Amino acid sequence: MLPDKSPEFALIDSFREQLRAARGVELGIGDDAAVVEWGSRLGLLAADMLLDGVHFETSSQSPVEIGRKALAVNLSDVAAMAGVPRFALVSLALPHVAPREFVEGVFAGLKSLADEFDTAIVGGDTTSWDGPFVINVSIVGDVAADRAVTRGGAQPGDWLFVTGELGGSLLGRHLTFPPRVREAQTLHREVTLHAMIDISDGLAADLYHILEESRVGAILDSATVPISEAARQLADNRSPLEHALGDGEDFELLFAVSPDDGARLLASNPLSIPLSRIGEITADQSCQLRSEDSTLQPLPRLGWSHLL
Amino acid sequence: MLPDKSPEFALIDSFREQLRAARGVELGIGDDAAVVEWGSRLGLLAADMLLDGVHFETSSQSPVEIGRKALAVNLSDVAAMAGVPRFALVSLALPHVAPREFVEGVFAGLKSLADEFDTAIVGGDTTSWDGPFVINVSIVGDVAADRAVTRGGAQPGDWLFVTGELGGSLLGRHLTFPPRVREAQTLHREVTLHAMIDISDGLAADLYHILEESRVGAILDSATVPISEAARQLADNRSPLEHALGDGEDFELLFAVSPDDGARLLASNPLSIPLSRIGEITADQSCQLRSEDSTLQPLPRLGWSHLL
Repeated sequence: MLPDKSPEFALIDSFREQLRAARGVELGIGDDAAVVEWGSRLGLLAADMLLDGVHFETSSQSPVEIGRKALAVNLSDVAAMAGVPRFALVSLALPHVAPREFVEGVFAGLKSLADEFDTAIVGGDTTSWDGPFVINVSIVGDVAADRAVTRGGAQPGDWLFVTGELGGSLLGRHLTFPPRVREAQTLHREVTLHAMIDISDGLAADLYHILEESRVGAILDSATVPISEAARQLADNRSPLEHALGDGEDFELLFAVSPDDGARLLASNPLSIPLSRIGEITADQSCQLRSEDSTLQPLPRLGWSHLL
Repeated sequence: MLPDKSPEFALIDSFREQLRAARGVELGIGDDAAVVEWGSRLGLLAADMLLDGVHFETSSQSPVEIGRKALAVNLSDVAAMAGVPRFALVSLALPHVAPREFVEGVFAGLKSLADEFDTAIVGGDTTSWDGPFVINVSIVGDVAADRAVTRGGAQPGDWLFVTGELGGSLLGRHLTFPPRVREAQTLHREVTLHAMIDISDGLAADLYHILEESRVGAILDSATVPISEAARQLADNRSPLEHALGDGEDFELLFAVSPDDGARLLASNPLSIPLSRIGEITADQSCQLRSEDSTLQPLPRLGWSHLL
């Protein structure tokens, strides 16, 4: 008999056991790399790194919630391309003091959401150190219908839509939001999505990403921006509308479609969640907010930058 | 005109500019996910997270070296499956105090090695925090000849080989090692690789991975283990052989082939680096070290665990 494995390897083995036999996985955790089947000619690749004290708080949030969020933000990226999530790699930097239950909780949070979205966790890395907890998830998706929806295809005259309600995710939704994977696929089937993004930095900031990549402008109608109950609760020196425009981590979909497609969506919403027409794309490369009395003012680049 | 981007986004844009037009990349950095072409039916997925103070030292090592290493360890994982690296995702957690030159150095280290191995950096994530520097690279590879070489195929009677020389990588080689991507592909073409792994935890520890996955044992011939000059320099309370057996991060290839294929490799080494026959696979599930006088002793699970 070979000598016993160390407890650390045994823990990885228990995760591996729970991750066996997923669709398209020829070889999962346990070798130098996972071997997977590609489902289409094109693939989607994205990654998000979440840090204790920045994107979550281990002091007040559960490891299950944190693990869930780390995968959810990646699923949201795949949704924003109208893709189908397939495989995930998970890297963890664990504080030396983290108990085994912490790792198991993170794994449970990852696993339950992965199962819900038929996504196989196929590998990653586990290290430990004196620093705070870090989790990175990289995701591989298939392109639905062999065409991804980018940020770059919005055209003058297009209508702008957003799913769900915005603002105040800090009160809890940033941990529990459902990634809009199925909604994006339904939209991709029902209409021609010219451009799409998931709202992670905030509506205004992410709208700017679409405008820059599409080389167009926009007018946003303030009266039609869907404001969440949480944004109203949070209202402080900033109004509920400002929260809806500027708060990050809504993880709703912002997209542009032709007026014809837009009218069809308004006539019959194919989703089981709210869908709001919030403005239109303009040829003029500026971005303005139209108030209820029709006055226009420049929309500032609100929103939280995750970068640097 | 749209308002100017923040300096952080401008930095990402400059990286993006330098990463344009890579083979198989339909859409690189700058959208929710990268869109890539799969080159074969099967893909390889792996990730490694490197931490300041654990896998490198920002205090004494250059950002170029650190960026290079973060990609190199991933290329080594793909090599160990006899795969062809294609795409990489890079996630960075940057200390708030890190100067712009630091990020640029890390990027330069990544980029030069990526170019050398025709691997496209297609996305990732950049965040900042109060903690130490963290870098995670996830890699996507193609399976060479539509077959990956796992750890699980070693058979009793197989000969064990290792590339290069082992031990003492701490003296510098852990930062500068060349990933054995081309060597693995050459071997995959020339012989039937039954099992292969890259030596990251140390020869003894990684040999155990092959034995466990293949459900076999091995006898290692101590006289034939190739010992590096660095291992001899390091010799302290541990002998050069112990360094060669136990030191991690050699990133050489350890593999098992049939005696016929092994004899062909010994007769004519197809690589431009040393290739050593260091032992054989046994049906008996134990692992022993044979000394020059042919006495056998159990090989301990030497080596450094990266885990927990």
